[in-house]
Amino acid sequence: MKFLVIGADAAGMSAASRVKRNLPDADVTVLEKTEDVSYSACGLPYNIGDPGRDLSDLVVRKAEVFRSKQGINLLTGHTATRLDLSAQTVTATAPDGNDALFGYDKLLIATGASAVIPGIPGTDLPGVFALKTLGDGRSIKTFLERNSVRKAVIIGMGYIGLEMCEALRERNIDVSMMEMSETFIPWMNPALSDYVKEETEAQGVRLHVGYPAEKIERTGGALSVISGDLALEADMVILALGVTPNTGFASEAGLETGPSREIVVTRNLETSSADIYAAGDCADAYHVVTGSKIWIPLALRANRAGWAVADNVCGIRTELPGVAGTAVFKLFHLQVARTGLNPAEAEKSGFDPVEAVVKTRSRAHGHPGSNDIHVQITGDRKTGKLLGFQMVGHDGVAHRINAPAVALHAGMTVEEYAQSDLAYAPPFGPVWDPTLTAAIQLMKKL
Amino acid sequence: MKFLVIGADAAGMSAASRVKRNLPDADVTVLEKTEDVSYSACGLPYNIGDPGRDLSDLVVRKAEVFRSKQGINLLTGHTATRLDLSAQTVTATAPDGNDALFGYDKLLIATGASAVIPGIPGTDLPGVFALKTLGDGRSIKTFLERNSVRKAVIIGMGYIGLEMCEALRERNIDVSMMEMSETFIPWMNPALSDYVKEETEAQGVRLHVGYPAEKIERTGGALSVISGDLALEADMVILALGVTPNTGFASEAGLETGPSREIVVTRNLETSSADIYAAGDCADAYHVVTGSKIWIPLALRANRAGWAVADNVCGIRTELPGVAGTAVFKLFHLQVARTGLNPAEAEKSGFDPVEAVVKTRSRAHGHPGSNDIHVQITGDRKTGKLLGFQMVGHDGVAHRINAPAVALHAGMTVEEYAQSDLAYAPPFGPVWDPTLTAAIQLMKKL
Repeated sequence: MKFLVIGADAAGMSAASRVKRNLPDADVTVLEKTEDVSYSACGLPYNIGDPGRDLSDLVVRKAEVFRSKQGINLLTGHTATRLDLSAQTVTATAPDGNDALFGYDKLLIATGASAVIPGIPGTDLPGVFALKTLGDGRSIKTFLERNSVRKAVIIGMGYIGLEMCEALRERNIDVSMMEMSETFIPWMNPALSDYVKEETEAQGVRLHVGYPAEKIERTGGALSVISGDLALEADMVILALGVTPNTGFASEAGLETGPSREIVVTRNLETSSADIYAAGDCADAYHVVTGSKIWIPLALRANRAGWAVADNVCGIRTELPGVAGTAVFKLFHLQVARTGLNPAEAEKSGFDPVEAVVKTRSRAHGHPGSNDIHVQITGDRKTGKLLGFQMVGHDGVAHRINAPAVALHAGMTVEEYAQSDLAYAPPFGPVWDPTLTAAIQLMKKL
Repeated sequence: MKFLVIGADAAGMSAASRVKRNLPDADVTVLEKTEDVSYSACGLPYNIGDPGRDLSDLVVRKAEVFRSKQGINLLTGHTATRLDLSAQTVTATAPDGNDALFGYDKLLIATGASAVIPGIPGTDLPGVFALKTLGDGRSIKTFLERNSVRKAVIIGMGYIGLEMCEALRERNIDVSMMEMSETFIPWMNPALSDYVKEETEAQGVRLHVGYPAEKIERTGGALSVISGDLALEADMVILALGVTPNTGFASEAGLETGPSREIVVTRNLETSSADIYAAGDCADAYHVVTGSKIWIPLALRANRAGWAVADNVCGIRTELPGVAGTAVFKLFHLQVARTGLNPAEAEKSGFDPVEAVVKTRSRAHGHPGSNDIHVQITGDRKTGKLLGFQMVGHDGVAHRINAPAVALHAGMTVEEYAQSDLAYAPPFGPVWDPTLTAAIQLMKKL
């Protein structure tokens, strides 16, 4: 069996490795356009923030190990350019510039996503960087080493933008952020996002919301990011406007794609074309709350989908239930997390959302070191169903979001969740876990 | 409506307060034998460990507030001695030594539990203490202040014993522990309990397992705890052999009790006698995994049951699904948690248990500050059902146990749990949450 994989990161290498484990005799080839394979992209901001750490720390497994120990034909420097569905072949440009042809019985497209580069002048100036790949990380770290960077501007305030904000502050760089939306973290309840905003500003970061970046200029030695009357000077500019799936290759071949150009897959990770799978940041997923399709590029899903593709390819039929959209990030002293839907998303999906917001404490009454913890919960008025949670706090947020996430998978009502027997000890929380307090408050409104 | 409550801690005061909120005109009387009401008993060890903190920090709400602000007739120093079911009256000894009679329409028994005092000589010697009540905490703190305590022996290695071990080490007291069982933390998988044992011993604590305490002696100025050839000298001895429900009062009146003498209650918290409820550490509960009765005294359940009693008393019919036995404690730098059943408990309940144990990391690959995290999972071979989890680690255990707890409430299989979309960010965990890794390993065995 010839299994061909395009893309050698989380989804691609998970699938390739597992096929070789399932079927040691399978012929597994992976085409990767860069020289980097199997690294933790999510770890890039933290690594960049620490001059003492090497980017190689982020590499989970080296290409050589995949080749020699696992028997995977891993070809780096190979850019897939054309997919011929009827011939079951992929054409790729090899490092020597020539085309090479690869046949397959089963194909996995795991081409990931790329940073969005806004269509404004100046994004190609030296000192302007996006951050998605290990290569991007290398460029940024090299630039920081070779230049005296005192001021940076980050365009965009999503996860990557905020994580890069912390990373640059760690290096004692002055940071300004610019965002076209009028609200800071638009998906978040204002009580929670205001708390995050205060913490960010307390770290000396200047936040400019409602400013669409119009151009980046270089005048003398300095860069300048311009939006109307606002001009922010910088030695370095980070573009953090989100990511877009790398699916040109797939859609040109006629594979079905969704509203964000992500590849549409079944619960078995099958694309619209026989024997072709897609997984990772380039593919969509079912949302466990809505039952509808959604595109949320997340690392766990990429790994899980890679495994599921491998099993399906090997005849072990495997369906994935989908994602709850559970995510967490660290921002200075804060932990910020979410799972499921916020009220606006719930309304779009046909629910009748009601929310409650509570501020409680991260530790028991009278226990030292207790901090505020802010919890938002969304439920459905019609069915009483739990729809989502958001949380912000100094401690005890990152893992606390997982109990609500499991409740969403189980389709629990708010009342059922409120009855959960959660752990209690004074150093770790109040008797009523903050998520339970939020659920109890919401029950009064349902 | 006359609502009478016996016991003014978590369950009793939750119920009394909520009845007054539900029905402001209700006549609510609470009889409490001590002078202490509504305090965090779980916070006692931490408070004792810190000479700078006052025990009053643990009082959640003062008696005066319940009386004047909430209109509850809270009578401290009143010991209930007799329950007359047909007359619907309770006799109590008042502080003046005389009997007083209290009628009721609805009665809640929330008498809690007491520390087990072993039937060995010397438990009444000065310097020998149990720890359950605020009064016990006061006695211990006063003793520590007035005496130069350099060495302590703790008999028993349950939660309280281990928490007291940490508290006394915090005060730089030399600690030895003695336990009759041959194993350290018998409910825990040896791979996990060995890890806890190592950490405890690394803190200079001497652990003597397989030694039933036979007597406590005072020779000269020092106490001595004796078990066969072993004699442990101490300035102070803590009895930490668990708790027993305070149900003599209830069983004398003919209320049904269970194997540990806990009061048997329905999902509505009704006892075997009409109009009488029981809640808190004196009452049993349904276990959500087995569906059978269990007695696990836990603070969250006590509070929740108090509320449910109040609602039922006020005609709002409320059933509690039960407990998963979720618990966490801190021991020096470790967090130790469990939920659900271990293999031995599962077998007793008629399951065909299979377990997996994994050692993984608390943070992402390459992220600094990562520690080992040990996870044990139990599942049922026949049904694939998730039965329980245990976890030990330096960070990220306390709240991580709650996702499995919710899964137990939802009756998930191990496979369903393994598909949960849990949060990931490098500072907080690996891509595959350690509980997911454990579930995946267990699936291979099921």
